[in-house]
Amino acid sequence: MAAVVAATRWWRLLLVLSAAGMGASGAPQPPNILLLLMDDMGWGDLGVYGEPSRETPNLDRMAAEGMLFPNFYSANPLCSPSRAALLTGRLPIRNGFYTTNAHARNAYTPQEIVGGIPDSEQLLPELLKKAGYVSKIVGKWHLGHRPQFHPLKHGFDEWFGSPNCHFGPYDNKARPNIPVYRDWEMVGRYYEEFPINLKTGEANLTQIYLQEALDFIKRQARHHPFFLYWAVDATHAPVYASKPFLGTSQRGRYGDAVREIDDSVGKMLELLHDLHVADNTFVFFTSDNGAALISAPEQAGSNGPFLCGKQTTFEGGMREPALAWWPGHIAAGQVSHQLGSIMDLFTTSLALAGLTPPRDRAIDGLNLLPALLQGRLMDRPVFYYRGDTLMATTLGQHKAHFWTWTNSWENFRQGIDFCPGQNVSGVTTHSLEDHTKLPLIFHLGRDPGERFPLSFASAEYQEALSRITSVVQQHQEALVPGQPQLNVCNWAVMGHLAGPEGPRLLPRRHRPPGATPEGDPRGPHRLHRRPRLPRLPLWPLPGPGAWTGLCAHPKAGEAARPHCVGLLCPGVREG
Amino acid sequence: MAAVVAATRWWRLLLVLSAAGMGASGAPQPPNILLLLMDDMGWGDLGVYGEPSRETPNLDRMAAEGMLFPNFYSANPLCSPSRAALLTGRLPIRNGFYTTNAHARNAYTPQEIVGGIPDSEQLLPELLKKAGYVSKIVGKWHLGHRPQFHPLKHGFDEWFGSPNCHFGPYDNKARPNIPVYRDWEMVGRYYEEFPINLKTGEANLTQIYLQEALDFIKRQARHHPFFLYWAVDATHAPVYASKPFLGTSQRGRYGDAVREIDDSVGKMLELLHDLHVADNTFVFFTSDNGAALISAPEQAGSNGPFLCGKQTTFEGGMREPALAWWPGHIAAGQVSHQLGSIMDLFTTSLALAGLTPPRDRAIDGLNLLPALLQGRLMDRPVFYYRGDTLMATTLGQHKAHFWTWTNSWENFRQGIDFCPGQNVSGVTTHSLEDHTKLPLIFHLGRDPGERFPLSFASAEYQEALSRITSVVQQHQEALVPGQPQLNVCNWAVMGHLAGPEGPRLLPRRHRPPGATPEGDPRGPHRLHRRPRLPRLPLWPLPGPGAWTGLCAHPKAGEAARPHCVGLLCPGVREG
Repeated sequence: MAAVVAATRWWRLLLVLSAAGMGASGAPQPPNILLLLMDDMGWGDLGVYGEPSRETPNLDRMAAEGMLFPNFYSANPLCSPSRAALLTGRLPIRNGFYTTNAHARNAYTPQEIVGGIPDSEQLLPELLKKAGYVSKIVGKWHLGHRPQFHPLKHGFDEWFGSPNCHFGPYDNKARPNIPVYRDWEMVGRYYEEFPINLKTGEANLTQIYLQEALDFIKRQARHHPFFLYWAVDATHAPVYASKPFLGTSQRGRYGDAVREIDDSVGKMLELLHDLHVADNTFVFFTSDNGAALISAPEQAGSNGPFLCGKQTTFEGGMREPALAWWPGHIAAGQVSHQLGSIMDLFTTSLALAGLTPPRDRAIDGLNLLPALLQGRLMDRPVFYYRGDTLMATTLGQHKAHFWTWTNSWENFRQGIDFCPGQNVSGVTTHSLEDHTKLPLIFHLGRDPGERFPLSFASAEYQEALSRITSVVQQHQEALVPGQPQLNVCNWAVMGHLAGPEGPRLLPRRHRPPGATPEGDPRGPHRLHRRPRLPRLPLWPLPGPGAWTGLCAHPKAGEAARPHCVGLLCPGVREG
Repeated sequence: MAAVVAATRWWRLLLVLSAAGMGASGAPQPPNILLLLMDDMGWGDLGVYGEPSRETPNLDRMAAEGMLFPNFYSANPLCSPSRAALLTGRLPIRNGFYTTNAHARNAYTPQEIVGGIPDSEQLLPELLKKAGYVSKIVGKWHLGHRPQFHPLKHGFDEWFGSPNCHFGPYDNKARPNIPVYRDWEMVGRYYEEFPINLKTGEANLTQIYLQEALDFIKRQARHHPFFLYWAVDATHAPVYASKPFLGTSQRGRYGDAVREIDDSVGKMLELLHDLHVADNTFVFFTSDNGAALISAPEQAGSNGPFLCGKQTTFEGGMREPALAWWPGHIAAGQVSHQLGSIMDLFTTSLALAGLTPPRDRAIDGLNLLPALLQGRLMDRPVFYYRGDTLMATTLGQHKAHFWTWTNSWENFRQGIDFCPGQNVSGVTTHSLEDHTKLPLIFHLGRDPGERFPLSFASAEYQEALSRITSVVQQHQEALVPGQPQLNVCNWAVMGHLAGPEGPRLLPRRHRPPGATPEGDPRGPHRLHRRPRLPRLPLWPLPGPGAWTGLCAHPKAGEAARPHCVGLLCPGVREG
């Protein structure tokens, strides 16, 4: 922690001394920050990471002009927790984005859940305000959909996007489609005002998200420093692309989505050049978790040479593509072997703004500026959690698995496969296997695919185990888990059981007089508290069989209590 | 064929018109040709192909300055046949580098085999002589070790290297180590004059091969055009590197070998620049077959996202890294999706020299110049043979498997695994499965890992099958198989059973008076015919259990007849 503070001070000094960033007032100005967060994109999905079709010329150019991280990790193999970790700089086990419903269960924020990002968490845009940043989120929020979790209550100044995944279409009455917001206002719903054609894969959303980003950059570039969090979701099943991109990829519809995102990133970087702010804008590209191989081959990306995918704590579940770009500051064509984490974007962004991270809590993110600007390598562990359980830890080149699990035999036999075509005996297990007494250890340099555990008797094993054990003990002794936000089968956090219906969303047809796309004159709370929409029942989530163990629907006349004994509930992914 | 001839003529015209290549005489001169052929290096082994450690800066730069082929194939999943195909432009089934001992069996040229490249085959250096080229092979020959197969009898002017793999060490008397040649002269043996330390992995061979290449380039660059075939073997198990590279890779010893080769390629390209012949030298980098996953993780490379490895006809067995470099002619930073083959290097090299391929035989290699110079894409199939059997065919994005096989259950249960960690039900079969009536078809764009066969009922399947069937029928109807050179369990081709001992190799201590490193005044035949070395008995090949089903050793007093009933013999790999 001390090192982080020191590096930050050093950087603040550099900023003061540098003439690179000058605001309209002529005062030194910290750089703009543009975080490009992909959804379910895998490590192997970019040409520069070896995707055979090589269809990402703009991202490949971004890598050639900047720094590529081959060893960069998400904070969780699932969407909501990973995103909460990015914005808080803290592991989901600390910020509450996990479940204790069962051991080692993934969880996220479906519509039934009333949990979300606690007010006690300090999010990146909140903190950046202190340095004068104006912040916008474009795309998927995923940190809770009740009013208290709204992005504009957590530091963002603007939002265009949705609180949740674009699953659907649903029945608009009993089971409303997921809403899309502009700031406080619900401006429509997926499959309605924002159509997604599941048959053809056509949707215009990436173009809308691109335009939102370009407009924001144009507006902000000459004034305050900006933080733009571009969290698009075209590569999350059901994948989509707009008409000019549909059918253009060798990789099918998933590739079409990637091509449209690649094109969009190219346009954003071009705009930064055109506005002459490229050398004052730090851009980082990464993804929330590994490719969702359960949707392969039509709707999933690639984790390259790595084992398994989304939902697992093997490399395929959490190792991500990661590119940093900042012309004139980050030298072109570099590769950094720094072990990086999505949580580092929190601390690094604060350092760019000349700020220090909060000192009243544990922060897991590292300030990457020494790696980015000086090519330094810093020791740090990577922790792989699944729900409440530390499944694995990487330190240097060695990764120790304390628990292994893909999913249950029951689900696997139903065709739900997180590791299609892959099977490493004793490693890709279909029961939750306890290795805490004798962890499986892999050398990720010689064996990136986690196929050959080190011999327990080897000196290398003993040495690696000793180093990792020490770090893990330190981590666990200091750990104060946050209140779990994603428990289900729990009356307190399930929306339909939470007593009086909570505040609901405002469809366009019910927009109060005076409400504009920029906001409602009566304030956000009033806007959100009326009128009531129908209560959301439990509903089985759609998708290719990926969602498991839903609570049974209550029959008419039954108490609306989910049948949870022996079952999992929406929002908790079994494995 | 007509198209190839036309393209060649067009190119000859271009050469005449171009002032780029001028010999010492001032006459137009075709470009030098430098083929860099790796041994058991996989598609995923270069940084530019996504290898996570990113330790190939020189090869990555070569790609950035030239053209990268993501869809380039060897002609066979094993060494000897692939190399014979490169130099003849013809599939092994045509040039004889296969076996009919059993169905779909891989075979190569161990020391017991007297077969080799037939005189009737016309090799690339033979043909290039017509355009004034001086040719040298540095490294592994692998096209037969009897005198009639010597590289200098097949068009090469110089050789430094070995006829075979660097397995060993062997007993020098009963089982001599594999010899190393300079031209006609045996200058030593592996593990003796050319030490390889199996314990530390240290060997100086890549440095020797590099120096041979640099010396040749320096000597030739100002005179005749040259053809240099740099066939190094440090990445073939037992992998090795010289002291400065040992222990420097994140990937272990295999990575050390790759780093030394990468460094060597950098030095060669630098020399071409220094000599001002870079723009008159066509350089191509590729590998003979996929990474030998049986030697993983310590001694094997990576096939990236592809299925299985060496010895198989899945993508991991035959898809190769491939880079073309020719400053001023091939534009920098290009990717070509042309389906390419190692056999194309034959036809393309001839085209560069202004020559046409032989017209009296079927040539499988394509002239790649339209792809290299104009970015054109040409339709062509890729045939995946294993021994005498056409296992699979790719056309466009679709690959049809007519037969599937990894290796036998018996061998697999002994731990011999060509697909470690991978298992695709009904695809990675451990018995030879006949799909000829209903081929398995994969779309390699959406599913490069061959995990999801298309539904037999789909329109896509029917359309792809129809296209591929037509091409395969045409291929098979016109096919005239060559006399198989690699049959074993066959008295006629087994060295120790071939009657009077054939001509043997000349150890330094028996060098005839007057013989110099440049050659023997009495001529190669005499040099090779005396004195006799001990007869080579059958011996079990070394390695990590990769070699299977060796003929039983005859006991003392038994007839020296291999016990072949129900067994395979040296040189035939079960698969």
